[in-house]
Amino acid sequence: MRPALLTASELEQRLSAEFPEAFNSDVGLAISGLWYGGCRVHLPLQPNSLRPGGTISGPVMMMLADVAMYVALLGSIGWRPLAVTTSLNINFLRRPAPSALEAECRLLKLGKRLAVGDVGIRSEGQDDLIAHATSTYSIPVEIR
Amino acid sequence: MRPALLTASELEQRLSAEFPEAFNSDVGLAISGLWYGGCRVHLPLQPNSLRPGGTISGPVMMMLADVAMYVALLGSIGWRPLAVTTSLNINFLRRPAPSALEAECRLLKLGKRLAVGDVGIRSEGQDDLIAHATSTYSIPVEIR
Amino acid sequence: MRPALLTASELEQRLSAEFPEAFNSDVGLAISGLWYGGCRVHLPLQPNSLRPGGTISGPVMMMLADVAMYVALLGSIGWRPLAVTTSLNINFLRRPAPSALEAECRLLKLGKRLAVGDVGIRSEGQDDLIAHATSTYSIPVEIR
Amino acid sequence: MRPALLTASELEQRLSAEFPEAFNSDVGLAISGLWYGGCRVHLPLQPNSLRPGGTISGPVMMMLADVAMYVALLGSIGWRPLAVTTSLNINFLRRPAPSALEAECRLLKLGKRLAVGDVGIRSEGQDDLIAHATSTYSIPVEIR
Repeated sequence: MRPALLTASELEQRLSAEFPEAFNSDVGLAISGLWYGGCRVHLPLQPNSLRPGGTISGPVMMMLADVAMYVALLGSIGWRPLAVTTSLNINFLRRPAPSALEAECRLLKLGKRLAVGDVGIRSEGQDDLIAHATSTYSIPVEIR
Repeated sequence: MRPALLTASELEQRLSAEFPEAFNSDVGLAISGLWYGGCRVHLPLQPNSLRPGGTISGPVMMMLADVAMYVALLGSIGWRPLAVTTSLNINFLRRPAPSALEAECRLLKLGKRLAVGDVGIRSEGQDDLIAHATSTYSIPVEIR
Repeated sequence: MRPALLTASELEQRLSAEFPEAFNSDVGLAISGLWYGGCRVHLPLQPNSLRPGGTISGPVMMMLADVAMYVALLGSIGWRPLAVTTSLNINFLRRPAPSALEAECRLLKLGKRLAVGDVGIRSEGQDDLIAHATSTYSIPVEIR
Repeated sequence: MRPALLTASELEQRLSAEFPEAFNSDVGLAISGLWYGGCRVHLPLQPNSLRPGGTISGPVMMMLADVAMYVALLGSIGWRPLAVTTSLNINFLRRPAPSALEAECRLLKLGKRLAVGDVGIRSEGQDDLIAHATSTYSIPVEIR
């Protein structure tokens, strides 16, 4: 596996500085694996992410899918925080248990201007996918 | 326009009780229009929804699209909070200004078990769409 | 309504020359309306587009959605046939009757490099949508 | 790998009888692998599937993705031809060479009423994906 251009802890530090509302110790998003072309991101259970029926809300999983795609992309192109999501498609497959979530992203295409990836989300310690997303990012032209 | 099964203020009160982390005075989500088959939802600008470049983050718009679809659905089938999103597809069209957002949802199909709708999101007071989503909800069988 | 850059009959002639397998008298695709930012396309019923249950197959509706988006785009940017679909998302809403189809496309965004639109498909003479698609096209840089 | 409920050749025969316009010797669709939860489908190059620029048209790949999903589903639930696509999302990743296509489908969820899967499409003999689709099928209730 080809290594990422940043280590997981470097990237976490930069994300904490740039997105303090998402990457902070309250939310607890953590990069549990990072390589060229993919990553794993861990999200602890948070009481306020539950919805009626004791399950985790859809927007929490959409946020996690989007973050995982962003992490995989920055790990593969380096720190270019102005990359932006241009589309996201998600299917919710199973009712998640009230537990921590693990997202795994792989880039399907990494072009100069556009990246496409997919993300599988599981409840921690489980095999079955609870959600599956596909997402597209636009990569800004680098000005040197 | 056929009226919704609930008024906007009844629905807001129930959502505040059921989803206090989303429908509260800090977040400020408000139903600005509700009719059978559709709705409008308003989201004030929140400092922590900004991302690098001064724009609003994708997950905030995905949450808003999901909420708008949920509101349109409950306004059209009555209070059945266990309805769940089964898929959401969103395209981000333009960089949003740092301002309040307006989402307008219309149901494209309202079946007994499944509803499909689309949602257009605009910056307050602007004509151009900044994001467009399509979403599917599963409607639980009602047990009487 | 601002006029398209090409008339419907000009565009049909060019499409027939370039895509003879799709735009020919056997298939019968016809542009029934064309304006800047949108179009309507008509597809006659073809016996071999039916599938078990007497309904029209999904791929026929996907092809129609893709063609409608292409027509709306070329009507709005002029004849640039190398524009290519980068994504398409479709929801099948109702079982179509065995009849002709009408697709209506509107562009949601028309940028220099990227266009996004949505397409509603109806059975001829019916109000309800039978399918709804959202699609993205990449516009090639024009070399003069 | 758990075996499918039908062999590839049994399923091909039934599909040829039911969908003669798609499964015939002119089109040449063939099931090159079939197991419980997935399949591989092969599509020879056809002159009329090319579009300007010498590449394969989008609708051909959408048809292939839809067929692969249908084959994987019927291989896993048995012959129930009334199963219908309810949604399909596809990203076109790279310009395909003018060659045969290979699609590989895996089911991400197989419920009683709903199945979700993804499909990767490659040019024959190549590693990189040229398109990636996610699709949902509705499974009819079996009447005995």
